[in-house]
Amino acid sequence: MHKNLDRRDHYAVIFTSKLKHPAHGYEEMAFQMEELAKKQPGFLGVESARSDLGITVSYWTDQEAVKNWKEQLEHLKAQELGKSKWYDWYKVHVCKIERAYQFTSTD
Amino acid sequence: MHKNLDRRDHYAVIFTSKLKHPAHGYEEMAFQMEELAKKQPGFLGVESARSDLGITVSYWTDQEAVKNWKEQLEHLKAQELGKSKWYDWYKVHVCKIERAYQFTSTD
Repeated sequence: MHKNLDRRDHYAVIFTSKLKHPAHGYEEMAFQMEELAKKQPGFLGVESARSDLGITVSYWTDQEAVKNWKEQLEHLKAQELGKSKWYDWYKVHVCKIERAYQFTSTD
Repeated sequence: MHKNLDRRDHYAVIFTSKLKHPAHGYEEMAFQMEELAKKQPGFLGVESARSDLGITVSYWTDQEAVKNWKEQLEHLKAQELGKSKWYDWYKVHVCKIERAYQFTSTD
């Protein structure tokens, strides 16, 4: 079954990363940051997967919420640690959602 | 080192999915679809990761390219197979990129 998701004009932040090996302490910090993100104003959801690459997509009500999270103090510290210790590279895409839908199996 | 990515006003399609178990034939089809996507007009790139969830983000020059790929014949067949055989659920977010930047470690 397909249905439209009420996410139009909300924001998605796509964070794609490649870790250095080893990346000691990374998993713990990633978990902490996800928990912290959930408490921010305007937070709508987060999804993560990691194979060779890691992809984390967080969803936000508006641009202001994205900006506030980027500049949140603990998050800034984590970003600095990430750059010095954990990430080989990362890319960030800040996007405005124009259309969203989902399918759920009826099996 | 941070640098801006020239992706402003391009499109990102975020495809988040949960597979049924088992999902025989899925990996092969996913690979084929990625190869096919790369040949479409307006294709800019694709990134995938799978843990419990799978996240695939594809990047496109414009909305028209996104629409054409969605309606490409082989891709339509794969979507139907996906719905009947492989996906427990999936979500699609079509987004316009407003800002993009990347960091590359100098180590």
